[in-house]
Amino acid sequence: MSEAGTRMSAEIAEQPAVFDAVLARRAELAEVAELAAAHRPRFALLAARGSSDHAALYAKYLIEVLLELPTGLVSPSTTTLYGAQPDLTGALYVTVSQSGGSPDLVEATKAARGRGALTVAVTNTPGSALSAVAEHTVAIGAGEELAVAATKTYTATLLTLYLLVDAARGGSGEHAAGLGELAASTLADTAAGVAAAVERYREIDRVVTTGRGYSSASAAEAALKLAETSYLGARSYSGADLLHGPVAAVDESTGVVAVTSRGRGGEAMRDVLAAVHERGADVLAVGSAAEDMPASRRIVLPDTAEEVAPILEILPLQRLALELALARGGDPDQPRGLSKVTRTR
Amino acid sequence: MSEAGTRMSAEIAEQPAVFDAVLARRAELAEVAELAAAHRPRFALLAARGSSDHAALYAKYLIEVLLELPTGLVSPSTTTLYGAQPDLTGALYVTVSQSGGSPDLVEATKAARGRGALTVAVTNTPGSALSAVAEHTVAIGAGEELAVAATKTYTATLLTLYLLVDAARGGSGEHAAGLGELAASTLADTAAGVAAAVERYREIDRVVTTGRGYSSASAAEAALKLAETSYLGARSYSGADLLHGPVAAVDESTGVVAVTSRGRGGEAMRDVLAAVHERGADVLAVGSAAEDMPASRRIVLPDTAEEVAPILEILPLQRLALELALARGGDPDQPRGLSKVTRTR
Repeated sequence: MSEAGTRMSAEIAEQPAVFDAVLARRAELAEVAELAAAHRPRFALLAARGSSDHAALYAKYLIEVLLELPTGLVSPSTTTLYGAQPDLTGALYVTVSQSGGSPDLVEATKAARGRGALTVAVTNTPGSALSAVAEHTVAIGAGEELAVAATKTYTATLLTLYLLVDAARGGSGEHAAGLGELAASTLADTAAGVAAAVERYREIDRVVTTGRGYSSASAAEAALKLAETSYLGARSYSGADLLHGPVAAVDESTGVVAVTSRGRGGEAMRDVLAAVHERGADVLAVGSAAEDMPASRRIVLPDTAEEVAPILEILPLQRLALELALARGGDPDQPRGLSKVTRTR
Repeated sequence: MSEAGTRMSAEIAEQPAVFDAVLARRAELAEVAELAAAHRPRFALLAARGSSDHAALYAKYLIEVLLELPTGLVSPSTTTLYGAQPDLTGALYVTVSQSGGSPDLVEATKAARGRGALTVAVTNTPGSALSAVAEHTVAIGAGEELAVAATKTYTATLLTLYLLVDAARGGSGEHAAGLGELAASTLADTAAGVAAAVERYREIDRVVTTGRGYSSASAAEAALKLAETSYLGARSYSGADLLHGPVAAVDESTGVVAVTSRGRGGEAMRDVLAAVHERGADVLAVGSAAEDMPASRRIVLPDTAEEVAPILEILPLQRLALELALARGGDPDQPRGLSKVTRTR
């Protein structure tokens, strides 16, 4: 058996090259996006599980803001358990699945196509059961992922979804150009900040993550990654919700990870963090706006357009989850009972 | 100052009477439901924050299964931060807010109405800013809530939403009749089971809650209640997601609360719980199907139609949050920093 965390570490490090590979396929993605846009959908639905559900949340913001289509996240069980048969004429139905093998997503996608939706599978496994039932398949192209905790497939999915939405609005992907290089510098430049955060967090049991707008997805994915690799009680809240109730659970034994990148979402976090910071909470701000935020410590990321910031924001947080798991004596490559395919119906 | 937890305790105990009061207004709710149904919406959108967001999740299942309309939960920030202006012609837009005062929900609802949606406010504060901007207002009628953690307003909201959806499909509310009495017997009959769970959970730091279908909302609300009153690291997962990753964070120091009521959602939990229970996790099953589930301990609830089960399922879990907070030396009536109105934009 290899050393603990070797797989997850290697796959985190692969991300700059994976981004370059996804960007090289922009024209191919644009073709599917243009096909979908030509249908002039009335609304969009996104079906996903686990980390892919956070990628879907990111896509929800992209579709609502950049394409101005109302968008919902699907609850597959209304189809698979309760047999609901809504009229989906005019719906764009995008299923996001790394494995393409979750039976409930396959069944829900097949049913949606039968009820009139334009179905698109976004998957890292193009020959999967999912791509067999969807009308169009878009490959994520991240290469095989061996670690059980998703890292490179998550970010490759974000980038793929961004390029699809951007192409659908007639964009040329300019905000995504250079993300491979930026990912490499981000991983190099944040190592010290991550190591310092590990020292702070190795003894705590609870982490709250928070973000607003596009960065909500980064906060949700960071909490899941910490929960599944480091055995932490990690919860994610919208910045808007944080002061409403959950802040009661924030005390000196809680770490607050705030994802704050330049733009309207990050700006809206300033008042929230001022209140949380004033209450004595230990706030770690992560993002391109981190240096301006009320916080105890910061991991500053390169400036990008706000809409692509989540593709970089998660990188130091993946490393935090990995190194925290190792520091706490765990092995993120061998978490107890993790399976890469959700098998439930 | 009154004794710790007095307000929350009193409001939990009020619920049977509140249910009777809501049921007595069924005809009034049916009028709004019939107005909305007459518009023949193409899809539904639900906007909410905090506990009301879990009530909205319950309504999402109701609308998708019973009315067969695709339904999405709104991200208000796509409107309030990013200024998206989607075409909402044919959309039913339901805003759920106890206070009716959250500025972002008010702004998002006003914008949705301006873009063609049929807007309905479901609120415990009928004279609120929210009801001023929505086309129709439905009062929850739970009476003033003094405790900061929502209990009676949450369940009264569920019941109100159920009666609305049921009336929209031409139902007579038969599955909800008698819920006041069932709530009273549930509170009386589950006291011992809750006390036993408090003994088990008073020393642990992490709780995972889980459910499927309609009961997903109960699991999410239970986790929030535990997190905001008892300073626990509590996370909620769909039963479908639990084995996919989060189960790695389940060990002997974690409590698993599984909401399992009779019906397809509860049935789908059986395999999930068998796997979790086999791994040595301490599973507390709560619901009308609890006695048949693989679990270490059980809180059995009365049988109801599956679609109204969430209205009873949360009752013992509210009590668990209250009593656990007291057992751990906290005061759920005075959690640090909680505010009843989300003030963020």
